[in-house]
Amino acid sequence: MAIQIPRGTQDILPGEVEKWQFIENTAKEICRIYQYKEIRTPIFEHTELFQKGVGDTTDIVQKEMYNFEDRGGRSLTLRPEGTASVVRSFTENKMFGHPNQPVKLFYNGPMFRYERPQAGRFRQFVQFGAEVLGSEDPAIDAEVISLAMELYRRVGLKHLKLVINSLGDKESRISHRNALIDYFKPRINEFCSDCQNRLEKNPLRILDCKKDKDHELMKSAPSILDYLSCESKKYFDEVLVYLDELEIDYEVDPTLVRGLDYYNHTAFEIMSNAEGFGAITTLCGGGRYNGLVQDMGGPETPGIGFALSIERLIAALKAENIVLPFEKQVDCYIVALGDQAKHKAMVLLQQLRKSNFSAEKDYLDRKMKAQFKAADRINARFVAILGEDELQKEIVLLKDMESGKQTEIVINDFVEQFKTLCK
Amino acid sequence: MAIQIPRGTQDILPGEVEKWQFIENTAKEICRIYQYKEIRTPIFEHTELFQKGVGDTTDIVQKEMYNFEDRGGRSLTLRPEGTASVVRSFTENKMFGHPNQPVKLFYNGPMFRYERPQAGRFRQFVQFGAEVLGSEDPAIDAEVISLAMELYRRVGLKHLKLVINSLGDKESRISHRNALIDYFKPRINEFCSDCQNRLEKNPLRILDCKKDKDHELMKSAPSILDYLSCESKKYFDEVLVYLDELEIDYEVDPTLVRGLDYYNHTAFEIMSNAEGFGAITTLCGGGRYNGLVQDMGGPETPGIGFALSIERLIAALKAENIVLPFEKQVDCYIVALGDQAKHKAMVLLQQLRKSNFSAEKDYLDRKMKAQFKAADRINARFVAILGEDELQKEIVLLKDMESGKQTEIVINDFVEQFKTLCK
Repeated sequence: MAIQIPRGTQDILPGEVEKWQFIENTAKEICRIYQYKEIRTPIFEHTELFQKGVGDTTDIVQKEMYNFEDRGGRSLTLRPEGTASVVRSFTENKMFGHPNQPVKLFYNGPMFRYERPQAGRFRQFVQFGAEVLGSEDPAIDAEVISLAMELYRRVGLKHLKLVINSLGDKESRISHRNALIDYFKPRINEFCSDCQNRLEKNPLRILDCKKDKDHELMKSAPSILDYLSCESKKYFDEVLVYLDELEIDYEVDPTLVRGLDYYNHTAFEIMSNAEGFGAITTLCGGGRYNGLVQDMGGPETPGIGFALSIERLIAALKAENIVLPFEKQVDCYIVALGDQAKHKAMVLLQQLRKSNFSAEKDYLDRKMKAQFKAADRINARFVAILGEDELQKEIVLLKDMESGKQTEIVINDFVEQFKTLCK
Repeated sequence: MAIQIPRGTQDILPGEVEKWQFIENTAKEICRIYQYKEIRTPIFEHTELFQKGVGDTTDIVQKEMYNFEDRGGRSLTLRPEGTASVVRSFTENKMFGHPNQPVKLFYNGPMFRYERPQAGRFRQFVQFGAEVLGSEDPAIDAEVISLAMELYRRVGLKHLKLVINSLGDKESRISHRNALIDYFKPRINEFCSDCQNRLEKNPLRILDCKKDKDHELMKSAPSILDYLSCESKKYFDEVLVYLDELEIDYEVDPTLVRGLDYYNHTAFEIMSNAEGFGAITTLCGGGRYNGLVQDMGGPETPGIGFALSIERLIAALKAENIVLPFEKQVDCYIVALGDQAKHKAMVLLQQLRKSNFSAEKDYLDRKMKAQFKAADRINARFVAILGEDELQKEIVLLKDMESGKQTEIVINDFVEQFKTLCK
């Protein structure tokens, strides 16, 4: 039996891949405009990186990582997300010393989480993300959010909701943490065992629990917004003012905590509220992580970023019935008949291609009719016919497939004439 | 201590990543012109795929694969090359039944081999490759080779050598195999233990041995070209005629066997012969693999392809002192002074960006002089100045950094005026 693709992964084939190309090209163009530069980090990292950078108590690290040992016995992990790697690279490559500050980066590539495969969730999925390191200006929080929104706007999505929260600074988080412990402790035995562990380790995670999300205590749990320090509140207000000025709609949601340990201050999600989009509505998540670079051995450096899944973006396009525009036409198909003509056709094909025309011919020794059918299927703008007659007269018969008009062209002038016709 | 990047891998950072983008965009543009469509397969596959598809006796499978078990206990492997995955996907997705035949595909992505890291060799490296499934026309062999050559031509490489050979069909290979066994058997004890194992299993691999490459028997070993069947010889000759017609220079080298088991008929390598390029001169390798699809559980389908390493291409560019051309200018930097101006600058920035201009501002609360320096460093074409004076007068002062000319523009007309100036 033939070997199959691993569970939870997918092939992206011609016909579908064009969507990916379009989205990624759009994202890259936006990053050029916003002045975010690409960074590429390895597919795997030392396991400690994610334990430290994503957080030991998160579901990702505890349950979902692909860990393996290399032949030298070191534990490696397929990256489950992009931020830890970017921070590692920023520190290791001393990018904090670069004259252009802040450092504005983007990445696009596969991530890996061992989850139960289900609609819209894959074990290998692609994330596009942006990170800004070295600025604590609320304007950067707004810029990062607007970058993500701009991508959705350019691909045509309309039914979006931006949800934002502040997780505050260290001081705010300690007060909130204590309030959460006091609040949940008396009834913690009504929660799942994960939550019972979380109570002392990281009570904020309880608010993010998938199992206990309907427990009545969840609704009126202490809100972080009531525990923000003066400075944190001022920072958050400034971010919101920028969003207002940039005319980006948002909803403040004090229960938004994100599934990663490293966030503080601004946290946000962009969700689809298209009808019939299904259960997983979060398209993009991000936030500020001012302590992370230092936690990971670098100098004290503020940071903020987001990641969005291309798979979910495509699902959202489908939910909104959006068809992405991309070119499907081929400039010229050469129909060749007879051995000599086939050889000559290859030479003409190469000339067309060197002049940047997309061009194709038959490679299956098909008859004229089948070659015309092939030309039709790939939507050829022109068909050049090269049979024995034409070869003897040293001409090519060029047919414009839109107008039906046919032109005889001297073989040696073919590409020059073709250029003129295409203008 | 900060966690470091895994051995044998690299970060590709801004300043260097632009080369990768340029090369990959060029490759994608050539594929559009040549009508090769992108395919994306997962980063890992079931281990059996490579055992079967690359070959159990190859160095890759025996020594260099990153194998690991998933949480369900199945053996997975980070892909060491692209062809096996493409063939798996072709079969699994029944692409042989697609109306457009042959199926012309390309891929670009990371591959993984656990090798001793050395200059020019990485454990994670990027391969761009093309595969054509479903045609046995010698014109396709020539097209595939010309596609690779065209990429090197477009990035500016000049010192290239194409080496080509035929490994024949099954019949040719059996005769050659027997001749090799007869030839090496009497003195096989002078060879390494790997070669001794190879003698009966796969004597062709002996010719490819890195340890025994200087043994005197290597020089005059039986040449496959002397054992080609009539049909194989005719096929090879036709490929060479096509290369001649396309004016692609080549050298026939009967010792070229490639490090993978699945090749037959055409095999080729493109090497750099730039001075001082170093020991590893092969930039690209490929060949025909007519039996592979069937071996892997699909229907009988001819195939041919190549893979080339982007790392090596970049090394070759360096050896030839070629600097790739890419845009480095930013359209506009907005210098803003004062709280109100900073907010207004964000709005203007967003307007510029929505009109597709690349634009930047300060996010570090820097003084005017430092902001001008930043604008200079990122090579801003224009600098827009927005101070308290300007804000009061509701104007922006726009400075053309090439001519030094300054223009006052009404804030509300800023983007429209900017468009006019940039034309």
